[in-house]
Amino acid sequence: MREFADFACALADAARGVTLPAAMRIGAIDNKVEGAGFDPVTEADRGSEKAMRGLIEYRFPNHGIAGEEFPDRPGRGRHVWSLDPIDGTRSFICGLPSWTTLIALLEDGAPVLGLIDAPRLGERYLGFGGTTNLITGSGTRPLKVSACRSLAEARFSTTDPYLFKGAEMEAFERLRAKARLTRFGHDGYAYARLADGTVDLVVESGLQPFDYQALIPVVRGAGGVVGNWEGGEDCSGGRLVAAATRELFDETVATLAG
Amino acid sequence: MREFADFACALADAARGVTLPAAMRIGAIDNKVEGAGFDPVTEADRGSEKAMRGLIEYRFPNHGIAGEEFPDRPGRGRHVWSLDPIDGTRSFICGLPSWTTLIALLEDGAPVLGLIDAPRLGERYLGFGGTTNLITGSGTRPLKVSACRSLAEARFSTTDPYLFKGAEMEAFERLRAKARLTRFGHDGYAYARLADGTVDLVVESGLQPFDYQALIPVVRGAGGVVGNWEGGEDCSGGRLVAAATRELFDETVATLAG
Repeated sequence: MREFADFACALADAARGVTLPAAMRIGAIDNKVEGAGFDPVTEADRGSEKAMRGLIEYRFPNHGIAGEEFPDRPGRGRHVWSLDPIDGTRSFICGLPSWTTLIALLEDGAPVLGLIDAPRLGERYLGFGGTTNLITGSGTRPLKVSACRSLAEARFSTTDPYLFKGAEMEAFERLRAKARLTRFGHDGYAYARLADGTVDLVVESGLQPFDYQALIPVVRGAGGVVGNWEGGEDCSGGRLVAAATRELFDETVATLAG
Repeated sequence: MREFADFACALADAARGVTLPAAMRIGAIDNKVEGAGFDPVTEADRGSEKAMRGLIEYRFPNHGIAGEEFPDRPGRGRHVWSLDPIDGTRSFICGLPSWTTLIALLEDGAPVLGLIDAPRLGERYLGFGGTTNLITGSGTRPLKVSACRSLAEARFSTTDPYLFKGAEMEAFERLRAKARLTRFGHDGYAYARLADGTVDLVVESGLQPFDYQALIPVVRGAGGVVGNWEGGEDCSGGRLVAAATRELFDETVATLAG
C-alpha cells in the first residue's frame, strides 16, 4: 500500500501543476475577458484530471479509473482510482482557499486509501492502513480527531444550507439548532479539518462517489466515524455523516431521524 | 502616510506572532484539555491586541486606540487606530484559514488606511492613498476589483445567512435569488477577495466599527464601491454593501430596498 500512497501523492502533484496556476489567474481572467467563452474552472478541472489519468494509464494500466470529468475506464483487477480534480469549484471561482483535489484508491469497490490535497493551503491529507497524516512543507504529522462527544459541544460544518430540501432541510435545522456552531462552504476540506480535530462533525447530502470516496479513509485513519444518515456504513446514497466520536455520530443520526 | 503604512505592517506582524501559533494549536488543545477553563481564542484575541496597543503607545503616544477587547484609549490629535485582532473567530475555532486581523488608521474619524492580514494564508492587503496592494512572501502587487456590473453575474459573499432577521432576511433572500452564486463564512477576508477581483459583492449587517473600518480603504483603493444599505457613504449603522462597480452597488441597494 505504501507504493500506492506514494503514487497518490504523485497524482496530487500532477493535479496541482494545473489547478494552482489556474487558481492564481481567476481574478485577472475575470478582469480581462469579460463575457468571453473561456471557462478557467472547466479548463483546470479537465486538464488536471487528464494529467492524473495519464499517470495512472502509464504506471498501472490494469487499474480502473472513475473521475468526474471523463467516462469511467474499466480496469482488469481489484483496483480503481476515484478522482475529483477540483472539489469546491464555487470556492475556486471566488478565489477562496479551501478547494481540494480528491483521490481515492478502491480495492474490490471499497476505499482503502484517501488523499485530500489543498494546494492553496499547501496541505495534503493522506489516509490508509488505519493512519492519517498531514503532509506540509514543514513535515509530516499523524492526525487525530477531537474528543467531542455531543452536538452541544460540536463544531458542525456543511457545504450549503440551501442544498437541503424538504425533510432534509428540517433535519438540518434540527442539527443546526443543537450544534455549538455551524460553518458553511468548505466541501471536502471540512473532512480534513475533522481529521485534524478542529471540526467535530460534517453532514452532507447529494454527494457523488468521487466526492466522498477519498474522505472515508482520511476520517477513519484519524479515528473518526463515517456512515450514512441512517447510521449504516454504506455511503452510496450520497448522504454522509462524519463525526469525531461514535457518541457524536449516534446523536447526529438520531437527530437527523427526528 | 507611508510611515503609517509601514507601522500598520509592524502591528500586523506583532499580532501574527500571537495569533498564528494559537491557530496551529487549536486541534491539539481541544484533544488534550477537554472541558478545561482555558480558551485559546480569547487568549489569542487579547494577547495580540495587547501587543499592538503596546507598539502604538510606544511609537505614537498621542494617537487614540479603539479595539475590540479593551476600553478605548482617547488620543490627543487627529489619529485613532482601530483594531480587530481576530476577525472571524468561528473560522479560527474550526481551524479554517480565512480569519484575519483588521487594522485601520482613522484621521478625523475617517478611515484613511486599512490593512487586512490573513496569517494562515500568508496574505496582507494594504489600502491607502487610492491604492491597494497585496503583500505576500513572493512580492507585492496592486489590486483591482472585477468589472462585474450586474447581480446576475455576481459572486456574492456574506458571513452567515442566519445572522439576518425579519426584513433583513427577506432582503438577503432577494439578493441570493438574483446573484450568480453565494458564499458564506468569510468575514473580513471576503472584502480582500473583492479587492483582488475574485468576489464581486459583499453585503453584511450588524458590523461594529472595528469590523468594517479597515475594509473601506482596502476596497476603495482597488477601485470598489463601499456604502450602506440605503446607498449612502455613512457605514456607522453597521450595514455594509461593498461592490466591484457603481452599477452593481446601485442594483444591490435597489434589491435590498425591495
